[in-house]
Amino acid sequence: MREISSRDNRIIREVASLRERKYRDEKRLFIAEGPNLVREAVYGSPGIRFIFMSAGAESPEIRGLAAEAEKKVPAVYEVSSDCFARISQTDSPQGIIAVIERPDVDEESFFDAAGDGCILVLDRIQDPGNAGTLLRTAEAAGFKGAIAIKGTTDLFGPKAVRAAAGSLLRIPVLGVRDADSLLSTLEKHGKTAVAASMEAKTAIYDIDLRKNIALIIGNEGNGVSDELMSRARTVSIPMEGRVESLNAALSGAIIMYESLRQRTLGAKN
Amino acid sequence: MREISSRDNRIIREVASLRERKYRDEKRLFIAEGPNLVREAVYGSPGIRFIFMSAGAESPEIRGLAAEAEKKVPAVYEVSSDCFARISQTDSPQGIIAVIERPDVDEESFFDAAGDGCILVLDRIQDPGNAGTLLRTAEAAGFKGAIAIKGTTDLFGPKAVRAAAGSLLRIPVLGVRDADSLLSTLEKHGKTAVAASMEAKTAIYDIDLRKNIALIIGNEGNGVSDELMSRARTVSIPMEGRVESLNAALSGAIIMYESLRQRTLGAKN
Repeated sequence: MREISSRDNRIIREVASLRERKYRDEKRLFIAEGPNLVREAVYGSPGIRFIFMSAGAESPEIRGLAAEAEKKVPAVYEVSSDCFARISQTDSPQGIIAVIERPDVDEESFFDAAGDGCILVLDRIQDPGNAGTLLRTAEAAGFKGAIAIKGTTDLFGPKAVRAAAGSLLRIPVLGVRDADSLLSTLEKHGKTAVAASMEAKTAIYDIDLRKNIALIIGNEGNGVSDELMSRARTVSIPMEGRVESLNAALSGAIIMYESLRQRTLGAKN
Repeated sequence: MREISSRDNRIIREVASLRERKYRDEKRLFIAEGPNLVREAVYGSPGIRFIFMSAGAESPEIRGLAAEAEKKVPAVYEVSSDCFARISQTDSPQGIIAVIERPDVDEESFFDAAGDGCILVLDRIQDPGNAGTLLRTAEAAGFKGAIAIKGTTDLFGPKAVRAAAGSLLRIPVLGVRDADSLLSTLEKHGKTAVAASMEAKTAIYDIDLRKNIALIIGNEGNGVSDELMSRARTVSIPMEGRVESLNAALSGAIIMYESLRQRTLGAKN
């Protein structure tokens, strides 16, 4: 295993710059931290650029993982604790980091991979924890991709990557400029835009959600934009008691799981 | 409106002590902060002991709410900003606080209110945000009460109250000592204990969840205790892709909403 001990090493500087979204976007790289994510990346992800293990890491799990990774990844480094602190993006570093190439996803490859499956649309979701959780739930519910409208938190930032817990390595993510561009893209590829609304007359049980649905989840404060809301099919999540709304991640989970249930048991209509 | 400006005032000291769970339990009081929660309490909750408005509050919404509250609540105070900071339990106080009596819930009244409905069981949930969110989702999904096993975070602490967003004013909460005591209580009242498990052979779609279910949601790190797991009916949430689990609040929401769906559309069996 090669070693790096200087904080000014060129590679360390490059990886440290990935704390900023600007550089993550420019270099098309993101970071996965901790043994669980790194293991998933090593065994499931083709584009690992580097793996860094902290010289301070004592856990046999981490040392073993780094040793195994060397069989698959050309650039595995043991770096000083000081270097490691510089590149880690968490408050409590876990001793191992993978730097991963963001897959090149364009409109054609995205919709090819999605086939007639359902996809998730994030309409300016702000909280990286919510965004990552939604991606993870999308994978669990069998959704085939996620589109982020400009203004959505960076899905490749450290908190979103952590909350997505590996799903980012498997679910294709496409960015779009705005609502107009989203709607014309969806139309072109035969996807029906669906958004949750308290006022909708159709309950989630009364619409066929089995395939070709693009489920739009809106900004935590303001919900789905007026433009999208007026042009999407709206559906309501039934609520008893005096609850008026559930948060973005829960609403998304309930609708995506209703889609999975319909695929499993059949839609009502 | 009466005024208090001394931080050493007896009432202010008493309310400030509610920051500690020990005093919340002893005095059977909890705090709801901010105009939304206070409004719900004023219009929906019988046992408001005090309302405090900060003298620094300038918003007409808050001043109007305090004035209206005087018609219903005997003890409404305008307190100095200094006093208000002492009793507020949030980092960004919103100018108005209600101190509410915790409803007296014993086993009989809890199960009388639940009837043949479903209930939620929190098995040592640690995160107050998760606990509050689960209560809120329980209300939305038509669940009739929640049981907290000893070791669960205080549902009447500030973060859980905020996450529950009013549902704590409406959903009865019962505490139990341990798993044994839970199971004998459930049996006595005709409730079937159900827990989610990845290994379960029965999917959530293949069990009748319409009524008399006690859904157990386990600790974030360790899940449902072995004892409960071995004595409950276990059900699995289907997961596609390579996701192995979803967090406590999401798993709970998906199962509680499957229960609501079955009540709406009918169970498969």
